[in-house]
Amino acid sequence: VRELSRLLGPGAVLDGDAPAARPYLHDATESRAIEGRAGAVALPETADEVAAVLAWCYDHDVPVIPRGGGTGYAGGAVPLDGGVVVTLERLRGPIEVEAGQWRARVPAGAVTADVRRRARESGLFLPPDPGSAESCLIAGNVATNAGGPHSFKYGVTGAWVTGLQVAMAPGELVELGGRTRKDVAGYDLRSLIVGSEGTLGIVTGAWLRLIPAPAMALPVLAHHPDAGSGCAAVAAVLAAGLQPATLEFLDEPAAAAAGVDPPAFLVLAEADGAHEAEVVALRDELAEVLGAGARRLETPSERRQVSELWRWREGVSLAVAARRGGKLSEDICVPVDRLGEALAGAREIAARHGLESCAWGHAGDGNLHATFMIDRDDPSEVDRAGAAAQELFALALRLEGSVSGEHGIGAVKRAGLAAQLDGPARALHERVKLALDPKGLLNPGKKVPVAPP
Amino acid sequence: VRELSRLLGPGAVLDGDAPAARPYLHDATESRAIEGRAGAVALPETADEVAAVLAWCYDHDVPVIPRGGGTGYAGGAVPLDGGVVVTLERLRGPIEVEAGQWRARVPAGAVTADVRRRARESGLFLPPDPGSAESCLIAGNVATNAGGPHSFKYGVTGAWVTGLQVAMAPGELVELGGRTRKDVAGYDLRSLIVGSEGTLGIVTGAWLRLIPAPAMALPVLAHHPDAGSGCAAVAAVLAAGLQPATLEFLDEPAAAAAGVDPPAFLVLAEADGAHEAEVVALRDELAEVLGAGARRLETPSERRQVSELWRWREGVSLAVAARRGGKLSEDICVPVDRLGEALAGAREIAARHGLESCAWGHAGDGNLHATFMIDRDDPSEVDRAGAAAQELFALALRLEGSVSGEHGIGAVKRAGLAAQLDGPARALHERVKLALDPKGLLNPGKKVPVAPP
Repeated sequence: VRELSRLLGPGAVLDGDAPAARPYLHDATESRAIEGRAGAVALPETADEVAAVLAWCYDHDVPVIPRGGGTGYAGGAVPLDGGVVVTLERLRGPIEVEAGQWRARVPAGAVTADVRRRARESGLFLPPDPGSAESCLIAGNVATNAGGPHSFKYGVTGAWVTGLQVAMAPGELVELGGRTRKDVAGYDLRSLIVGSEGTLGIVTGAWLRLIPAPAMALPVLAHHPDAGSGCAAVAAVLAAGLQPATLEFLDEPAAAAAGVDPPAFLVLAEADGAHEAEVVALRDELAEVLGAGARRLETPSERRQVSELWRWREGVSLAVAARRGGKLSEDICVPVDRLGEALAGAREIAARHGLESCAWGHAGDGNLHATFMIDRDDPSEVDRAGAAAQELFALALRLEGSVSGEHGIGAVKRAGLAAQLDGPARALHERVKLALDPKGLLNPGKKVPVAPP
Repeated sequence: VRELSRLLGPGAVLDGDAPAARPYLHDATESRAIEGRAGAVALPETADEVAAVLAWCYDHDVPVIPRGGGTGYAGGAVPLDGGVVVTLERLRGPIEVEAGQWRARVPAGAVTADVRRRARESGLFLPPDPGSAESCLIAGNVATNAGGPHSFKYGVTGAWVTGLQVAMAPGELVELGGRTRKDVAGYDLRSLIVGSEGTLGIVTGAWLRLIPAPAMALPVLAHHPDAGSGCAAVAAVLAAGLQPATLEFLDEPAAAAAGVDPPAFLVLAEADGAHEAEVVALRDELAEVLGAGARRLETPSERRQVSELWRWREGVSLAVAARRGGKLSEDICVPVDRLGEALAGAREIAARHGLESCAWGHAGDGNLHATFMIDRDDPSEVDRAGAAAQELFALALRLEGSVSGEHGIGAVKRAGLAAQLDGPARALHERVKLALDPKGLLNPGKKVPVAPP
């Protein structure tokens, strides 16, 4: 603490045992409730300070745990066994939107929703919209390759990053890409850093590509009687060659928890575009396809109603958690034609463990947040949910999917990742980690696959 | 040759000195005319055979030079100093389009245009459209992260790859990703292989994401009096928030070489979309914006005319080469607002070296194919073009751009790449190369930055 304070100045380093350090020792979300411990929490204000902290840690063999907004679900930002938490919240320079060139230079500590609003003010759009957009940071979005509903049409965070500034071992700043939209000169180290969860470097700034904001977006909410009917509707959208901006689902218990009465299997699509007529036409096509077999169809068109619908959608996670006080939510992802099997499998796992469950997520991407609602004060329930989660990962892999569509591996899915990769791919992960972090000090205990105990 | 023949069977290995091996010792394009030499040319038929060849080479310390369609411009597939050329043209299993899921499993040796046609037959679209689509292979597109006109709206090849099968050192097949559209579980090694030009592994198959084919596409061709007016028109499209599928340009000498009379600075945009009305509306908006300052505007709408226009556009490269028998074409890329400076700078360089020059390319991406028309039988002209090319790379970097937007580094731009990267980024490239190809046998002398001589 003393030496780091000399680097960063007074007030920029907290003792890991101080009460003020407590919020930096666990995820801000309630999902896993892993409580860590750290020697210090560093709050640098500049990229150079981040590099200086990394250099000091590398020099003293001290682990470094980078932290964005703390909104992860997988313990990715939790200091598992000491070291220095480096929180990026003070890297708050201006968000520089270059409107005429559809791009922005963004500091690591910019809040995602602020970047999206600044882009909108210039008529532009940053599509990735994780549910935590009002509190997560761009650096964390990059480190986890965050998604959200609009990833169906527009892709995840990495698709919008043209350049990164990264603090890398043994403590230097590296520029990977920049303003240019197209660049195949070097290896794509930018994409290697994106989604690496702070285990290869610390993101200190980003160049983002933007696109013109859609002039209009109209949702369709279809109430289906069951998962079979709902999944058939999702498949029908794809088969019809319709391309909505989002293609979401909530199963019956998730809908019930979110206040839908009577509960139904909901499919939520959004049409967007540059011209009103085109948006209305796509909305109508979506309504026709999603309406087949549906009990009810909602097509709100007033701006206020549409905003309300999306605010409600963003609140689903909290509403589900409130159902029994806690939840364990895992974001597995499967080929979209296996969505129905994944949903049925998740229900079967929950039932076998005597757990209440629900699921919602990004149907078009085959990405489901399969969730067990639990009482965190009941140790048996917590244990059973943990065991059930491991079975969920195995289910995802049986269906040729992934143990993570957007939340990452963090501290909790490393065995799942090991099972997902073949032997040579596991070895590649270890070689890449060793090449870029030879001392293994960057976010240790995270991301890299390990065999289950 | 004898030992490899035992692995691959008769007729699948050529002696490097045999006449039949000659086409595999240089680029099929005329750009650089680097002639290599190889001990053998292997023509495996399966991914396992590719891995077996790589294993044999790794065991015997023999270089391996992977080759797609040979349509590169940078000598990336040329065996510089012996070793085994591994051509992927016989990896020609079926192109499996899963229409209802918007995806395809494609063997390494599939011709890009065939994949695009198969997708179209299912109402789907693979956007990357390099000019060589009728002869390049998917493996080569992946290895170079190929682009094309439609990359402006839709991104380059990497944006469409969800999974790769790759033969990697010391000779094993690795699966990186697969059918699933969204996957943040492991490091993004898929993107690391994409664009690595065969220096980290050999692509043997790919899973591609597809999208519904646009129902219609309408071009606008604006004849501007000069580069200033044309670049202003490009900037105006961005400023107006219009999103065409392509936003191309040809300068006056390129237009002249391609038969446009009177020559003009051409800007070629294409509007596409799912509904006719929307496409027409966007086309009209583009025509209005691109028409400001233009001498003439063409807006063909009959299918035959539109096809002819794009066939003409695809022929530009050959037409330019025919002007003086040869050309040296470099694809630098700059931030889009620096396009005018890049064009002026390229002309100035050509004039100083007494060379005829022209440029065309992907204006919206700031990606220009700056070209010197030369007589290959005039050694002085060839030398001057080489020197001028080095100055082009320096120009791109002065403008904060890249020495390659889509053609790659190959054997000829390694010094340019070294100048583009900062010291830590250069070191990262070396560490990654060493981690994945410890013996340095995969396509030696390519891609990895080296200081200029």
